[in-house]
Amino acid sequence: MKLPKEMVVRGFRASGASCGIKRTGKPDLALVVSDRPCVSAVVFTRNRVAAAPVVWGRANRNRGRLRGIVVNSGNANACTGAAGISAVREISRTACEALGIPKDSLLVCSTGVIGVPLPVGKIVAALPGLARRLDPKGIRDAGEAIRTTDAFPKRGMRRFRAGGRTVTLAGIAKGAGMIAPDMATMLAYVFTDAALRPEDARRMMRDAADRTFNRIVVDGDMSTNDTAALFANGACGLRPLAGAGLAAFREALESLLLDLALMIVRDGEGATRVVRFSVTGARSDAQALRAARAVASSLLVKTAVHGADLNWGRVIAVLGRAGIAVDPMKVEMAFAGVPLLRRGMRPDPAAERRAAPRIRKDAYGIDVDLGQGKGSAFVYFSDLTEQYVRINAGYRS
Amino acid sequence: MKLPKEMVVRGFRASGASCGIKRTGKPDLALVVSDRPCVSAVVFTRNRVAAAPVVWGRANRNRGRLRGIVVNSGNANACTGAAGISAVREISRTACEALGIPKDSLLVCSTGVIGVPLPVGKIVAALPGLARRLDPKGIRDAGEAIRTTDAFPKRGMRRFRAGGRTVTLAGIAKGAGMIAPDMATMLAYVFTDAALRPEDARRMMRDAADRTFNRIVVDGDMSTNDTAALFANGACGLRPLAGAGLAAFREALESLLLDLALMIVRDGEGATRVVRFSVTGARSDAQALRAARAVASSLLVKTAVHGADLNWGRVIAVLGRAGIAVDPMKVEMAFAGVPLLRRGMRPDPAAERRAAPRIRKDAYGIDVDLGQGKGSAFVYFSDLTEQYVRINAGYRS
Repeated sequence: MKLPKEMVVRGFRASGASCGIKRTGKPDLALVVSDRPCVSAVVFTRNRVAAAPVVWGRANRNRGRLRGIVVNSGNANACTGAAGISAVREISRTACEALGIPKDSLLVCSTGVIGVPLPVGKIVAALPGLARRLDPKGIRDAGEAIRTTDAFPKRGMRRFRAGGRTVTLAGIAKGAGMIAPDMATMLAYVFTDAALRPEDARRMMRDAADRTFNRIVVDGDMSTNDTAALFANGACGLRPLAGAGLAAFREALESLLLDLALMIVRDGEGATRVVRFSVTGARSDAQALRAARAVASSLLVKTAVHGADLNWGRVIAVLGRAGIAVDPMKVEMAFAGVPLLRRGMRPDPAAERRAAPRIRKDAYGIDVDLGQGKGSAFVYFSDLTEQYVRINAGYRS
Repeated sequence: MKLPKEMVVRGFRASGASCGIKRTGKPDLALVVSDRPCVSAVVFTRNRVAAAPVVWGRANRNRGRLRGIVVNSGNANACTGAAGISAVREISRTACEALGIPKDSLLVCSTGVIGVPLPVGKIVAALPGLARRLDPKGIRDAGEAIRTTDAFPKRGMRRFRAGGRTVTLAGIAKGAGMIAPDMATMLAYVFTDAALRPEDARRMMRDAADRTFNRIVVDGDMSTNDTAALFANGACGLRPLAGAGLAAFREALESLLLDLALMIVRDGEGATRVVRFSVTGARSDAQALRAARAVASSLLVKTAVHGADLNWGRVIAVLGRAGIAVDPMKVEMAFAGVPLLRRGMRPDPAAERRAAPRIRKDAYGIDVDLGQGKGSAFVYFSDLTEQYVRINAGYRS
């Protein structure tokens, strides 16, 4: 995937800088703000141990009218008690004042190490400078400032025509490992000049996140800080999208989020391959998703994918323990498009030979049909490598 | 743990040999049989994709009156369709005839690669010779013949006095990785000369397996072939155990199974440490166990344990996504006996310094109190190492 070089969306300005949280001196504070009110939609982690900014953000009555974001990296502000909440409040107040926008109209996010008090003084001191340096071309800098262990930046653009105008979407994201709670967080933000009705924004963002970010599995863990948000400021000049324009927006949004999600999987802490795992023929969509997630989280399946091992036996064994309706005699399975397993029986060696070279690639699909009903689901997952263990065993020591 | 050198239990004879399934020529066929009827109790895998011997064994009406076992290693006879069931039937018939015991009175088990037709001819041809070589000292050889990737053999003995007699229990097990479906299987067998009532045998075996084998987590996977069985032939001459004698047996059985279970965790494919993870203060025992299993299966926790990283943040983040009642402000956590987390807040550095050297040991405990109620549970889990990835990525290629 090629990264866009310039990210400009009418009415948005942004900046990124180092405020001194990261010892490396790399950028660790990002600000993006619209010059006019937005319709916004935010999706938060479902982890019950939510970080302070998530707790505060959920309670913010302005959630549907946010103007933008202020995000620090290097510290998750999680497990920081009442002081953590005060810190979010202070950041919100300082940033909104510096920008001259209504109070509580920014989404405040943090990502980084859990359990360390947030150096709120450094952030507050840096905010006025960041506000002064806001630039229409700054979204890319903001994207750089939200990185933690990301091996590469994650960003994307979409454009489409509607009513004689061009609608633009720009997305930035961070995360490697879905999700490494210790470095806490997948974050993703989309800024668009489309005009959207609030209910359309909310529904589309929830659905698109569910079909993209909620379908990627690196290690099966879920962070205390995960947040994805959409900001639509209507600066393209159209009235709220409807009909074909709205459908085009929905498609652009989902495709942009999928790009960002796949970048996260691909960056998944040592990952070398990404598999699209699809389940059909389940009793229900819910059973299909449960089966797909179980397979995508299995250490044995993930190591087999890493070793380019055509190990359908491990896949079928996980299906058996996934708590879904399954009969091994009805299971069919294909690797990289080559049908291998028919009715739970061993594949013929010729098919195995055909499939073998295809699973050495860095992306392919595994398709399972359970033969039980019409339920279906898919997930994307990365392989498990020695590098993953090295990264995660060594991070804090 | 020291392994017993000699394993003799009155009334049992056993043997192990190579019948040619393993290309290495290592022993791959085991036979253990009692010279008189036994009371038996068998616990099978709950995986819905059960191997042929499990399907057949479950349906065997003689399950409570089995005389012993015939086990092959090197091939799991799983995903082998109707031919797999026929193979089990043929092995059962041949072995019972060779031993001159009633039909269907042996537990037939297989462990090894999934999806490869069982070379039943080799097994059947070798059985008469194995039957001739049965020896009271042969249980240890049988234990050797059931190994697959086990780095070391797993066996143990227990003796206690009851009614002026000595009661003996001998256990053998195999498994490394709980569970590597590809090498399919944890197997464990206990042979005792105690006399037991059938209902006592069943209840004690189920309970003991639940508190030992069902509490170990290497990689969270469950095999298609897992089986644990108890054979009590009453040869010690006592009437069925009751009261204090029965209590002593229960204790001996659970402690023996725990030894075997811990050997499996310790052998867990590259494992270097074993952690006893305990949860108290949950809403219910079921919630406590759910939380404990989630933590024990978390890649991030397992890699942190490997790296001797005092990473309570990862533990609390897993608790948050475990689907149980949890409030970070009420969580208390101790590593290796040192209280670290109090009410979800960051520990003081002095406590961290005290705990740090203790988590470099090869076995220690992590204790969590959720402050929600009276539910409790514990599990034992191993760390996740680069060696695990090497073993499981490379096995079949």
